[in-house]
Amino acid sequence: MADIQSAPQLRDIQHAAARIARYAHVTPVLRSASLDALAGCELFFKCENLQRAGAFKFRGACNAVVSLSDAEAARGVLTQSSGNHGAAVALACRLRGIRARVVVPRSAPAVKLAAIREFGAEIIPSGVTQAERDAVMSEVLAQTEAAVIHPFNDARVIAGQGTATLELLRQAEAIDSVMAPVSGGGLLSGTAIAAHALNTAIEVFGAEPEQAGDAAESLRRGERVTGWVPNTICDGLRAELGPLTFDILRAHRANILLASEVEIIAAMRLLWERLKLVVEPSSAVPLAVVLRHRALFAGRRLGIILSGGNVDLEKLPWLPGV
Amino acid sequence: MADIQSAPQLRDIQHAAARIARYAHVTPVLRSASLDALAGCELFFKCENLQRAGAFKFRGACNAVVSLSDAEAARGVLTQSSGNHGAAVALACRLRGIRARVVVPRSAPAVKLAAIREFGAEIIPSGVTQAERDAVMSEVLAQTEAAVIHPFNDARVIAGQGTATLELLRQAEAIDSVMAPVSGGGLLSGTAIAAHALNTAIEVFGAEPEQAGDAAESLRRGERVTGWVPNTICDGLRAELGPLTFDILRAHRANILLASEVEIIAAMRLLWERLKLVVEPSSAVPLAVVLRHRALFAGRRLGIILSGGNVDLEKLPWLPGV
Repeated sequence: MADIQSAPQLRDIQHAAARIARYAHVTPVLRSASLDALAGCELFFKCENLQRAGAFKFRGACNAVVSLSDAEAARGVLTQSSGNHGAAVALACRLRGIRARVVVPRSAPAVKLAAIREFGAEIIPSGVTQAERDAVMSEVLAQTEAAVIHPFNDARVIAGQGTATLELLRQAEAIDSVMAPVSGGGLLSGTAIAAHALNTAIEVFGAEPEQAGDAAESLRRGERVTGWVPNTICDGLRAELGPLTFDILRAHRANILLASEVEIIAAMRLLWERLKLVVEPSSAVPLAVVLRHRALFAGRRLGIILSGGNVDLEKLPWLPGV
Repeated sequence: MADIQSAPQLRDIQHAAARIARYAHVTPVLRSASLDALAGCELFFKCENLQRAGAFKFRGACNAVVSLSDAEAARGVLTQSSGNHGAAVALACRLRGIRARVVVPRSAPAVKLAAIREFGAEIIPSGVTQAERDAVMSEVLAQTEAAVIHPFNDARVIAGQGTATLELLRQAEAIDSVMAPVSGGGLLSGTAIAAHALNTAIEVFGAEPEQAGDAAESLRRGERVTGWVPNTICDGLRAELGPLTFDILRAHRANILLASEVEIIAAMRLLWERLKLVVEPSSAVPLAVVLRHRALFAGRRLGIILSGGNVDLEKLPWLPGV
């Protein structure tokens, strides 16, 4: 891959799949007769909540970390994240035996901080705004020359995320549509590239919380919207599209649909009850979208990427007082 | 299968696998590096919580229901259960298009009752004691000539449960030990028969709550203990061995180990956190046993059957006030 700021191609995703095969899980695709009946279509759930470190993020982080030359790796890795990407980079670096530093805003949830620390990364606290986080990144970079791995606006990361869809389309036959949640757009970009390279007729959907709907708005306007203030239970879906992911999603005509917070929580509970899976709120947005737009999906064979399962088991959104 | 009161053989389990293949899920086998590190051995989790109707019980119930002749099936099925077996029989009968009746004690949890009803079975309430339940069974049988499918003391059911282990040993290589929770003993009997038919060197372990430890005590004494009053959070593990399952487990030298309620709850939470799976308390007893007896399992490649995932999501045992 010559340029980490250019869209990856199918061969990049295939190389990523080979690169991460030693480390990543091939996650199962699960089905539920009762959810199919509720939705009026055939749903194939690609269980990235069962991926290492509990989210699809490990695919992209691992691909990027393994891609580093020995000289780059020796200088360590730097990233910024308040969530699953930070833990994924930390684990990938531990597996390669190199140093990881993660800039984490002081607002990050304790459970995600603990995971980053558990995998042996150094946590560098920062203020909460993007400007404050960028300033800390610059300071660290000035001292270390660490390799930066952006959470989504990075072709190595996008290629890694695309491996989930390569697997899905091998595991389930005759899929005609795929859907993933969208935040910074790395997962959905990889999904779109992989799906369309294998079958141009597959329709690609993004699922986004209404209250963090910048990606839907950006694609509607044809220009990248910034400065949204997200207000959603989906702690994994509060980022904005980057320039690279915006271009990819526009080129692939990704259709981004919205769901409300109430719909997301109801869908999350359905996934726990019917699929018997621990998924985080972000993972439930696609099912919420399908149940809101039943007519649009009637009779389809839809692959859904369940993005992650890192959730505080004492603070489930359907419990009283939470 | 000539006699449903004789131990099934490998060929019966193989026939069961063929019979239920159209209906049952091939459940995945999941691994966790962090649980392996905690346990000091290699764990292969056979995810029967992801089976249809949320528990391994569907395998045995489906095999028994599909085995019925058309004449038998036309008279419908009768069983007794306060839990997963009732729902499994109900679903299997619905798939065959025949009538199901389930005798349910008035103490049964609402969530399990709802599942039995949702799958279209007729619920016949009874008193709580075994004598009261048997009396209701006899009354119904006198009127209907329905086919009785016992939850565990039935060779068709045991053969069905054994199919989980056939799959597990195909999915994971070089397993040297298998473990399943034990209550009436149907799952563990099927597990032992399947494992030893394929490899006589595999060691077979049962996992039982200390406070419902009749199976361990029965095998220790060499005679079936009855009349225990179980007091465990594991609502799926309150039955006693039957004559058939007792004989099978003794013949296969099943080694039954115990875990405390506190250990079971801690193991359940670990499975939710690390495997991202919704499992019911009964499913956590094997991991609790492994963590209590680390030295015994050091370095083994142990297959564990996660028996089910039907649990009230508002009453998780680690929540305050539950």
